[in-house]
Amino acid sequence: MKYSVFLCFLTLCISCQQTKPPQLEMNAMPHPIHPEGVLNVAFLVVDGVYNSELVAPMDILHHTVFHTEHGMKVFTVGPGNEYITSFEGLKIIPDYSWNDSLPSINVLVVPSAENSMDSDLENTQMIDFVKSIGKNANYIMSLCDGAFVLAEAGLLEGLECTTFPSDIARFRSAYPQLVVHEGVSFVHDDKAITSAGGAKSYDPALYLVELLYGNETARGVAKGLVIDWDVNTIDHVRK
Amino acid sequence: MKYSVFLCFLTLCISCQQTKPPQLEMNAMPHPIHPEGVLNVAFLVVDGVYNSELVAPMDILHHTVFHTEHGMKVFTVGPGNEYITSFEGLKIIPDYSWNDSLPSINVLVVPSAENSMDSDLENTQMIDFVKSIGKNANYIMSLCDGAFVLAEAGLLEGLECTTFPSDIARFRSAYPQLVVHEGVSFVHDDKAITSAGGAKSYDPALYLVELLYGNETARGVAKGLVIDWDVNTIDHVRK
Repeated sequence: MKYSVFLCFLTLCISCQQTKPPQLEMNAMPHPIHPEGVLNVAFLVVDGVYNSELVAPMDILHHTVFHTEHGMKVFTVGPGNEYITSFEGLKIIPDYSWNDSLPSINVLVVPSAENSMDSDLENTQMIDFVKSIGKNANYIMSLCDGAFVLAEAGLLEGLECTTFPSDIARFRSAYPQLVVHEGVSFVHDDKAITSAGGAKSYDPALYLVELLYGNETARGVAKGLVIDWDVNTIDHVRK
Repeated sequence: MKYSVFLCFLTLCISCQQTKPPQLEMNAMPHPIHPEGVLNVAFLVVDGVYNSELVAPMDILHHTVFHTEHGMKVFTVGPGNEYITSFEGLKIIPDYSWNDSLPSINVLVVPSAENSMDSDLENTQMIDFVKSIGKNANYIMSLCDGAFVLAEAGLLEGLECTTFPSDIARFRSAYPQLVVHEGVSFVHDDKAITSAGGAKSYDPALYLVELLYGNETARGVAKGLVIDWDVNTIDHVRK
């Protein structure tokens, strides 16, 4: 019987190996880009910005400085130099106003805010700022309903994307020309990384870190935030 | 051979069933407390406070207002009325200074900060504030190395607790009288909820919400932050 049990386990092991899909091959990340210098990352902050959607990607991208040679410099850009109030009541003084002369911006991050789906979209100053910065940035990232802002600025034309789960229908209705994915943490298409948001807002930022600096850096940053990072365990779309 | 394989599976299945602990029974949450009024929640903010450890519990506790009759009122308390700068560079204006006359505080939350393990512990003004508020609060919560601050203020005496995974050894060495758990997201003992921190900082707050307002409210708050909440899937200790 012992021998049979051993054989049984052996058969199971071999069977598992044989039927395992070539997941790693299919989902293999490209070789990291390893940028030559520090990358500047601007986070848009307006009244009603959601805390988690602002700080989850900020923490991930900021912590790169401890895990790679250059890393990223993160800063906030708001409507003016006075404090804005987050949805949850944090009073945050932006590092820059969008009317200031700004450092060149490699990555533009647009967290969701209370009015991302309505009055913010009529703020032509804000939309113009997002359009002009986003056009020239290497990457644009949205968390939750920040996707509405990117879409309104015309930065998602021809790209696949996602947004906050409960707002998918509204997003599709407002921008019917876009291919909007449901049930995924994030979508990466060309230079746009759009995401579901909430506590999942760490995912798109860790993905960008892995894309730029490689898996070891992404795992190091993640560990510092008590995350066991493996992009293949995250539901996402890569075009 | 086929018979042996069948027997082997049967043995494995029976063995699994027999050794499975009665998890659900052991981990059943008590009936929710359903507080009669709004609860005031103070978040300690000092220079170097970590973003995630501040906002993850703040978002969870703040969002209770949308999912229960009363919910919580969250606010920040810092050393003065000028802005503090978080570890990741956010400039945050505290709602109150710890020298101000404060509303009565039901829950005191201590997020980790850059110097939670060293110079902050020598800040007698801060430790005295934590001690006096924590003594009278219904609950005290620490995220990550905020546990050092609670311990230094004498608020964890006789209680089991935890802290940031990489700082467990240092915590045990600094406070050898404490029972410190490793490999768990959070520990609840008496009125203290201490936690590992990082992206897991949502867990202790959702747990407190479930304890106070019940599972439906906790799941509602969690869903708004794209979390599928089930306390039984979280490694934790409840005394």
